Amino acid sequence: MTSTDEATTGRQQRADARRNAAAILDAATRCLARDPDASINEIAKAAGVGRVTLYGHFDTRATLVGAVVDRAMQDAEAALSAVDLSGDPVDALRRLIDATWTITNRYGALVVAAERTLPGGEMEAAHEAPRARAERLLERGRAEGRFRDDLPVSWLVTMLHTATHAASAAVYAGEMAAEDAPRAIAATMLGLLTPPGGVVPDPRG
Amino acid sequence: MTSTDEATTGRQQRADARRNAAAILDAATRCLARDPDASINEIAKAAGVGRVTLYGHFDTRATLVGAVVDRAMQDAEAALSAVDLSGDPVDALRRLIDATWTITNRYGALVVAAERTLPGGEMEAAHEAPRARAERLLERGRAEGRFRDDLPVSWLVTMLHTATHAASAAVYAGEMAAEDAPRAIAATMLGLLTPPGGVVPDPRG
Repeated sequence: MTSTDEATTGRQQRADARRNAAAILDAATRCLARDPDASINEIAKAAGVGRVTLYGHFDTRATLVGAVVDRAMQDAEAALSAVDLSGDPVDALRRLIDATWTITNRYGALVVAAERTLPGGEMEAAHEAPRARAERLLERGRAEGRFRDDLPVSWLVTMLHTATHAASAAVYAGEMAAEDAPRAIAATMLGLLTPPGGVVPDPRG
Repeated sequence: MTSTDEATTGRQQRADARRNAAAILDAATRCLARDPDASINEIAKAAGVGRVTLYGHFDTRATLVGAVVDRAMQDAEAALSAVDLSGDPVDALRRLIDATWTITNRYGALVVAAERTLPGGEMEAAHEAPRARAERLLERGRAEGRFRDDLPVSWLVTMLHTATHAASAAVYAGEMAAEDAPRAIAATMLGLLTPPGGVVPDPRG
């Protein structure tokens, strides 16, 4: 074997390794989004690799869950930061809720898998950017008199986060259709954000 | 020792046993309401009994947590079933929220201890009576046009439950004062229950 052959083989092996790692991440995302308790065996099988290959890339299940969540959070952050939050705060909130629901629904049980596997601090850090974005929008809506300002803004952001999680749980439990969830969240939030004495907007906008 | 002495001693022992069991339950309730991870050692110490005595009454920590939760749920059910839910549905909801908050705040972290220790089904069963009571009130409010009827009543009950838990978590995290919680829950719920096109009531009533 010439040194050129060796270099080609090395490149080939590295390309295979990258493909395997990507296939494992994709498979793990699919499996964990369906079942938060999906095992390493199921994930390796879905990725079309052996357990040894999987452990060569991710040394524990927690490492793999962490990598899946990191990638999902990057995807979520890219989608959410692209939402137009200018203009009427009520319309902006509707757009933010739609985008947030799309992400929440895409990753489904992955949040549950993350909460069961990762240290509490990591999940809180993952929610920081979405919380800060929601907080800025709610503050602007308060300043413009569209949202109530007699409750702490941190409480209103918590209710937005909580309503999204509750809708996800209701869909998971079969109590709500996934396509009805964004309207239910928007209706709920627009009602609870309306200042006392104000008129609740129609959730269809 | 005569047979009369023996009978007296037996009665005495049974009375001691009952007192010990009650002291253990009281101590466990106090300890778990403060720290959901309170250990058997801490609870025995707070009750003024030894570990052997404690295990003579409750064979595992889970058995003890179960007994604490059973008694707390009986207390909660007694308090909640005494709430007057007649008259204006908005006022009735305020009274129900005040009573629910008092119970939630009294037992604090006990809910967390229960969720960590007991099988999921038991906690769901514990929430059945409060959910059914809230559902009846919300249905009546919808029938009388005071509450929105364009969202599933199960979702509205979930939001009431969720808002109460979120307030408890916010108080536990030091983000909200316990005395502000019932007003925040009531303001939130009265807003989100107002029919579209309706005016949000002042949370102070």
